[in-house]
Amino acid sequence: MTLSTVTDSRRPWQDVVAEKRQAQADAIAAFLSKGYVVRDPTIVDEPDISKLAASVARGEFRAEDVTVAYITQCIAAHKKTNCLTEILFDEAVTRARQLDEHLARHGTPVGPLHGVPMTLKDQFDVRGHDSTLGYVGRASRPAAESCVMVTLLERLGAVIIAKTNLPQSIMWCETENPLWGLTTHPDDDRYTPGGSTGGESALLALHGSTVGWGTDIGGSIRIPSHMMGLYGFKPSSARLPYTGLAVSTEGQEHVPSSVGPLARSLSSVQQVMELLAGESPWTLDARCAPLPWRSELYTNTLGRPLTVGVLWDDETIRPHPPITRVLQETVSLLRAAGHDVFAWDPALHPQVVAVQDAFYSADGGEDIRRDVAAGGEPMIPHVAKLVERGPAISVYDYWQLNRRKWAMQQAYLEQWRTTKSPTTGRTADVLLLPPMPHLAVPHKGCSWVGYTKVWNVLDYPALVLPAGQVQPEDCAVEWPLAARNDTDAWNAKIWTDNKEDMLNLGLPVGLQVVGRKLEEETVLAASKVIDDLIKAAGRK
Amino acid sequence: MTLSTVTDSRRPWQDVVAEKRQAQADAIAAFLSKGYVVRDPTIVDEPDISKLAASVARGEFRAEDVTVAYITQCIAAHKKTNCLTEILFDEAVTRARQLDEHLARHGTPVGPLHGVPMTLKDQFDVRGHDSTLGYVGRASRPAAESCVMVTLLERLGAVIIAKTNLPQSIMWCETENPLWGLTTHPDDDRYTPGGSTGGESALLALHGSTVGWGTDIGGSIRIPSHMMGLYGFKPSSARLPYTGLAVSTEGQEHVPSSVGPLARSLSSVQQVMELLAGESPWTLDARCAPLPWRSELYTNTLGRPLTVGVLWDDETIRPHPPITRVLQETVSLLRAAGHDVFAWDPALHPQVVAVQDAFYSADGGEDIRRDVAAGGEPMIPHVAKLVERGPAISVYDYWQLNRRKWAMQQAYLEQWRTTKSPTTGRTADVLLLPPMPHLAVPHKGCSWVGYTKVWNVLDYPALVLPAGQVQPEDCAVEWPLAARNDTDAWNAKIWTDNKEDMLNLGLPVGLQVVGRKLEEETVLAASKVIDDLIKAAGRK
Repeated sequence: MTLSTVTDSRRPWQDVVAEKRQAQADAIAAFLSKGYVVRDPTIVDEPDISKLAASVARGEFRAEDVTVAYITQCIAAHKKTNCLTEILFDEAVTRARQLDEHLARHGTPVGPLHGVPMTLKDQFDVRGHDSTLGYVGRASRPAAESCVMVTLLERLGAVIIAKTNLPQSIMWCETENPLWGLTTHPDDDRYTPGGSTGGESALLALHGSTVGWGTDIGGSIRIPSHMMGLYGFKPSSARLPYTGLAVSTEGQEHVPSSVGPLARSLSSVQQVMELLAGESPWTLDARCAPLPWRSELYTNTLGRPLTVGVLWDDETIRPHPPITRVLQETVSLLRAAGHDVFAWDPALHPQVVAVQDAFYSADGGEDIRRDVAAGGEPMIPHVAKLVERGPAISVYDYWQLNRRKWAMQQAYLEQWRTTKSPTTGRTADVLLLPPMPHLAVPHKGCSWVGYTKVWNVLDYPALVLPAGQVQPEDCAVEWPLAARNDTDAWNAKIWTDNKEDMLNLGLPVGLQVVGRKLEEETVLAASKVIDDLIKAAGRK
Repeated sequence: MTLSTVTDSRRPWQDVVAEKRQAQADAIAAFLSKGYVVRDPTIVDEPDISKLAASVARGEFRAEDVTVAYITQCIAAHKKTNCLTEILFDEAVTRARQLDEHLARHGTPVGPLHGVPMTLKDQFDVRGHDSTLGYVGRASRPAAESCVMVTLLERLGAVIIAKTNLPQSIMWCETENPLWGLTTHPDDDRYTPGGSTGGESALLALHGSTVGWGTDIGGSIRIPSHMMGLYGFKPSSARLPYTGLAVSTEGQEHVPSSVGPLARSLSSVQQVMELLAGESPWTLDARCAPLPWRSELYTNTLGRPLTVGVLWDDETIRPHPPITRVLQETVSLLRAAGHDVFAWDPALHPQVVAVQDAFYSADGGEDIRRDVAAGGEPMIPHVAKLVERGPAISVYDYWQLNRRKWAMQQAYLEQWRTTKSPTTGRTADVLLLPPMPHLAVPHKGCSWVGYTKVWNVLDYPALVLPAGQVQPEDCAVEWPLAARNDTDAWNAKIWTDNKEDMLNLGLPVGLQVVGRKLEEETVLAASKVIDDLIKAAGRK
């Protein structure tokens, strides 16, 4: 593809933006003009998808009722946070009616997700709609086919109601692009809801969806989940199908991007993972591993004392006081319940991060430059910085970088295999650590994703769960300590400058649970143990 | 690594060669000088490793007897074919004695491969020995640690007795390099035993090993197996551990190289695959998928009528008459036994091959040039041709090539998923096809590996089994037909010029059985069904 073929119909990028935004406004207005009535506004407050599906299956609500309630909430959330991109409301209502007819005719739901509304980051192809990735040049290029994920979700009975915003290029943990604009935190528009799956986190926090589907190549599911008090799961990349998703730096195989869910309950996350594994995604997607849901692994992990490695601090960027406190409290809860927790050494992390950073700019930014040039819009500052990191390397040097990556992956496996708990002599089932060194921050405040991105280059499953909130005692902690580096100083200042606001906002604090490659069942089970303890202690 | 650091101790490459070959001769002479007596020369004629291990376990032979018998056969094979590189005879005898002591003391073997001698392509690291890949520059750089495969094999009780020859760079399906020289066919030294795992195929054909471990990035296990009448299996790349193997173009992830066995019986191949899966290689190697041996998949496939797609001809290079005849006979045997066989369309193959060829030279040959420059030796003609194919491409273009690869992988999955047998409406369990368009050929006669290499870029498991021999009727087939292209004309001439020799040599004919990604159990079971039918019909 030469540059000329993608820019042949070049119009001022502002015209394309105006047209897309008008089309979005028209689609919302069209829905509102139909005068649907929300039968019961509390429909959107049930966080567990199996309970929601059950209430539809037994006729308590129609699928249409549920869909209309969620769309109505979607519109309100969008007004508040600018979280939506493509509007699928019409198709969603039509589909919900078909589901209702099916249930009336056959007496049984089409599947375990019958009538459950879901949303998608604007990267998942849905037939007839754009997948923009936040690029102007990808507007008005509707997908010919829906992606495999949508095929499977619809087979299970789900209803796709909208697509959601993400940053230009995807490669940033906040959510802004020249096409759709800035997505804001629902509680304070000066703050970010995180990214890159930030449209979903803002929407879910406002009960505008049950499960939001995102992608994660450095923290893009986990970071917005942490910031918005949600559950977000990045499986290993071979677990869920990527076919039919467009992505930035597509074609690179060095750091795999994973598809995964964000939701308002852990049970919803666990259920979609189990249900999708049950659909044998490897029969539809060439990059999926043939791994069914391993119930035994899940159940066995639930039913025994856990061995947990706790990583308090990656020794590059110090976590803010509420994060360290919540981690301490959670470790205490685990120990009190008879689980074994020991300190985990982050010594390999700086090397893993260095390899990953070299990869992100291996093409000299050419992939992103081309996409931006195709539309003609300006780059957001973070993207400009990313593409200007340095010139492209050679294929030979790229291979040498891959060798360093493999060596890192092997070294981490060796660390896991040989590090034994001093108490029990067992190796870790999972690791427990901060998802970020900070909470939700004012826009452009993020600067360090080292706590999440190491698990992408290692391709380990990692889940974020809400574990607490900022408390007055956090603001009393002595701070800043001596800064370790410029980024650490920046991060320290974020806390000092904003802690009172963060306390007043009651910002949520997430924790991250990490397992070995393709051990999704272990991570989900251990997360349930931890989540149950936190809930029982009334910590969230 | 700059060129100067690897050439700082540059000596004339001929001196390094002379030194390595002298060390090899000395090691062989040292063994012979010890006057070991082969207790029973028929020990080496048992092709089934479990029977051999059982005879050691019940005390019929000592492990030392078996090891000495095999080493003696190794030396004879080497004299005839120049198949060995590193000599591990001393360590092997010491290890065998330790196994004997263990059995005497404990009454039980150390594992199911107790006392079974095996060999390794000169690419698997064994502590204290070189892994040369056929490069002078890698001579006298002994490995600090043994590879994971050796660790697992020794844990199971195997005895490693030698390493074997391969072509310079590995990227060629014959076996020659300036360091160790040319490996020849045991029955005619004008012929090749195939490659790149050609040292193993020559050695196994002469009963100098039970299982030879090779690697395959384009056919390097399957081609020598086909040429020498052996069983050779290339699993999907994530099934067996690659950690501790050096490889050419290391660091590329586009076309994965797989570790796999060559053996004189299918049962030996099946057993090593099952035993190694049972050792959970993913706990020791970061690139392995967590897939235990799936007995149900294996047993179920054995016990029901198979659906087999047969690929008669890839429509680029026409197989020689004996191959087509053996394939026809095998299809008849399958049908007569109640299996369903239908024609498989090779329409995607030219595109898969084109993508793969672009990958092989993506670095402009830099990786191979550096390795050759490090030693200073000349390039063998095939390698010279490979590195001169064209300049390196950019990382961005490399990513675009990867996108084409993913599209190919997805297209092939779709073909498999949607192609139904016209008779039963079922999709294929496996495909059956030629491994090559020709049999063993005179040196430098190979020119087309399209029948094997497509399964590397797709990463599908593929097994070669012996299915017949050249017969007089093959020589009577009308030939050549109109050539489709230059390579097809070359291939046709190979048959015309050599068919009488090939008949006189009684050259074996292999067939290839292919399954979907990571369905090793299905391929092994279907191969057993086919192998049993061929044996029952007395075809080999």
